[in-house]
Amino acid sequence: MFRVDLNSDLGEGFGRYTIGMDDGIIPLISSANIACGFHASDPVVMVETVKKAKEAGIQVGAHPGFPDLMGFGRRNMNISLEEAKAYTLYQISALGGICKAQGMKLQHVKPHGAMYNMAAKDYELSKAICEAVKEYDPQLVVMGLSGSETIRAAKDLGLRTAEEVFADRGYEEDGSLVNRKKAGAFIHDENEAITRVIRMVKEGKVTAVTGKDIEIQADSICVHGDGEKALLFVEKIRNAFEAEGIIVGDVVK
Amino acid sequence: MFRVDLNSDLGEGFGRYTIGMDDGIIPLISSANIACGFHASDPVVMVETVKKAKEAGIQVGAHPGFPDLMGFGRRNMNISLEEAKAYTLYQISALGGICKAQGMKLQHVKPHGAMYNMAAKDYELSKAICEAVKEYDPQLVVMGLSGSETIRAAKDLGLRTAEEVFADRGYEEDGSLVNRKKAGAFIHDENEAITRVIRMVKEGKVTAVTGKDIEIQADSICVHGDGEKALLFVEKIRNAFEAEGIIVGDVVK
Amino acid sequence: MFRVDLNSDLGEGFGRYTIGMDDGIIPLISSANIACGFHASDPVVMVETVKKAKEAGIQVGAHPGFPDLMGFGRRNMNISLEEAKAYTLYQISALGGICKAQGMKLQHVKPHGAMYNMAAKDYELSKAICEAVKEYDPQLVVMGLSGSETIRAAKDLGLRTAEEVFADRGYEEDGSLVNRKKAGAFIHDENEAITRVIRMVKEGKVTAVTGKDIEIQADSICVHGDGEKALLFVEKIRNAFEAEGIIVGDVVK
Amino acid sequence: MFRVDLNSDLGEGFGRYTIGMDDGIIPLISSANIACGFHASDPVVMVETVKKAKEAGIQVGAHPGFPDLMGFGRRNMNISLEEAKAYTLYQISALGGICKAQGMKLQHVKPHGAMYNMAAKDYELSKAICEAVKEYDPQLVVMGLSGSETIRAAKDLGLRTAEEVFADRGYEEDGSLVNRKKAGAFIHDENEAITRVIRMVKEGKVTAVTGKDIEIQADSICVHGDGEKALLFVEKIRNAFEAEGIIVGDVVK
Repeated sequence: MFRVDLNSDLGEGFGRYTIGMDDGIIPLISSANIACGFHASDPVVMVETVKKAKEAGIQVGAHPGFPDLMGFGRRNMNISLEEAKAYTLYQISALGGICKAQGMKLQHVKPHGAMYNMAAKDYELSKAICEAVKEYDPQLVVMGLSGSETIRAAKDLGLRTAEEVFADRGYEEDGSLVNRKKAGAFIHDENEAITRVIRMVKEGKVTAVTGKDIEIQADSICVHGDGEKALLFVEKIRNAFEAEGIIVGDVVK
Repeated sequence: MFRVDLNSDLGEGFGRYTIGMDDGIIPLISSANIACGFHASDPVVMVETVKKAKEAGIQVGAHPGFPDLMGFGRRNMNISLEEAKAYTLYQISALGGICKAQGMKLQHVKPHGAMYNMAAKDYELSKAICEAVKEYDPQLVVMGLSGSETIRAAKDLGLRTAEEVFADRGYEEDGSLVNRKKAGAFIHDENEAITRVIRMVKEGKVTAVTGKDIEIQADSICVHGDGEKALLFVEKIRNAFEAEGIIVGDVVK
Repeated sequence: MFRVDLNSDLGEGFGRYTIGMDDGIIPLISSANIACGFHASDPVVMVETVKKAKEAGIQVGAHPGFPDLMGFGRRNMNISLEEAKAYTLYQISALGGICKAQGMKLQHVKPHGAMYNMAAKDYELSKAICEAVKEYDPQLVVMGLSGSETIRAAKDLGLRTAEEVFADRGYEEDGSLVNRKKAGAFIHDENEAITRVIRMVKEGKVTAVTGKDIEIQADSICVHGDGEKALLFVEKIRNAFEAEGIIVGDVVK
Repeated sequence: MFRVDLNSDLGEGFGRYTIGMDDGIIPLISSANIACGFHASDPVVMVETVKKAKEAGIQVGAHPGFPDLMGFGRRNMNISLEEAKAYTLYQISALGGICKAQGMKLQHVKPHGAMYNMAAKDYELSKAICEAVKEYDPQLVVMGLSGSETIRAAKDLGLRTAEEVFADRGYEEDGSLVNRKKAGAFIHDENEAITRVIRMVKEGKVTAVTGKDIEIQADSICVHGDGEKALLFVEKIRNAFEAEGIIVGDVVK
């Protein structure tokens, strides 16, 4: 029997601004990554989102990002390791306390956007982030790109990990994602995407953009709730999983 | 034997900006109110300040404020009760997690600036703030203006309280502070200020601006570390307390 | 022949966040109030919005607000007069320069949200705002609530004014808007709203919530582009105006 | 006869925070680079600083930076070219309008911190910044690192330039500054620094860290006002200039 987590980024509104279709995606996923007020979200949105997650019975993780609301945390910033650690600790703590107030417990931490991408290739940055996780709560799961430096740093620190894969992205032979500007970056055919992700879960393998099969650990699949089409694709994945005997469940086994 | 807490606002720097003389005031106080990133401070400053407090063996409290860095949290903002609660919870949580990472535990929560002053006169606002405190940790002490609505709301919610007095401020007959723009707002003579505060601690009384004696509960005294003169005044208070047999210690008895 | 301006708040997005249906409302109005980065908008959004306004041939005004992105500038803040003047000058200047870069000239300044409402009742605050307008460009038109302190302050400073009315709001006998929480605050019937606004334009009169007719100056009508329904209502107003021989045109006659 | 500009970064306070000794440095310089609210400063500080510059009779330039108050604009951010242009235009405009309100005119634009350093090596980024300058006012002077991509882009766009040199920094053979982490990055001996800068002004030459003489254009010298020692060094430079017949004056000849 196979089991995999479906995670999605939630609670990305800010003040009067809303983004994403949280109410649509929540029933389809097992883990929510909730923004913590740096790249998106504010305290009111965070409280609301944690309440919704609790009601739906899904797990909650902190989704810390760079202090760049204007850029939605998607722009690389060369913050210091000390800053990376403190920013992560602050954001995890803020969401962790909001969960505590709702009688919930944080399950995981997944860096957001540019912080995620930079950390995936930077062991020292990942280590700084993971140290914050460990100091806050050594039981927390670090979610990061499958096979990345983030996963390596988390394991080195003795933390639990959830290796994340993408159904709709191409992979290089070294397990990194094909750059968005290059051919093969995206898997446009939904059925192909689903076939690939099922193989990742069941066989731990994926065909890289070069045609070569590579090994890949798939603990969690990142899905999106930013439109009707995205929601339908997630439903399609779930139906395919059911047919294949893959159970959707949170990362803590 | 008498005992009173000396508290001061610390960790009010932001990025490259510094303010206050934290290293000078820390050895003189028993409790530090640490800014949480809304009206002042940032994660790096918070971590550093918690470390210093730990090293000095003083207690740490959260000092939540309005989201108004440009105004240092000193400008009234008519946020909703839902916002007041969520903003407070977020800020307590952020600092609480940073304390946890240092093996410390938050002692108290004291609203900052305009939030403190507005809450002192507004039971509903105080209640929203206190609910956040209670949901985060019902053992936390709420520090607020002696005799204020904040103290009343905290007690109604079953929370512990620390009633704060000011050595250098005048009081109205109802126990509120004399408006800063009115005559009698400040006690300019240091010896008079010290005599008054000793009486507040020992007798629970102070002479209001009208000349009438009123009752006042003095669990904690607010002192400032924003200059050499301020530090010398705190030393003077401590010396006077020693001569009077008043022990300086944190609010949790 | 009658003539009136239709104005709407535009450019309220921020970073990846969008709000409002700017492309839908632009063809229906004669003046756009563009947010300047304090309560909403960012430089990229401002440039885009000015370009759209230019292309559509409508006038542009600055829409300065409180520095409160989290509250969308809708929360009262007790900033000082010096701050009010400097914040207004900064925001007008930022948008004015962006207009200049597009070969456009600012037409007017209309305070946003809580700043608008506070200024409407506060002559000193209005004066501070109007001084900023005058120092930046004495030819600018100040747009404010019809009959308000803002209009009075602008006139006292020798500035041109555009007195704004609302089709869907009730009025008190003194010309102020009925508080949103009171009965009669909103005119829910669209036809009634249109009849009222036509009378304001043609006769300079409106029936107050008390039933008494009051005088009102209607240079500009505030309309909204925050939904399909809102857009349809604006079209309905325009059609009614055409039938009544009221020309829609910008405030500078 | 020789002539050179002395420039310094001013107006870097924010709200209650102050930084730098503006009153001390103003009498010693000919041009002030004033922060515009992104990496430092706020509207009140900007107004005050422009007034001081006007009173002292020195020129004012805009000092736009990245939207990173927490990092003081010193952290690289990979913003897009569209963002770079819009952010620069917004900031120049804001300060330009504040100058206009004081009857002053902007003289120059000098990017700040990480934006300055990134642009110095990136022609496209420099071009985006210079386009904003040109669209706002083609008479403005672009100040940038002597011999940098910023100067090249400005010249290509037909803008006037002021090539900036540093008295206390070492140079590579290609005219770039020696990395702060490498030996030779700083000229610690004040007399040597002054001798070097005089030679840059008079001969257009400097000895690179390798020992080889290179050509360098010195239109403006960057000086600092962040401490008593810094101020004394600027006085020393001025005295040396006087003895050498070098006139200190603003960049517009």
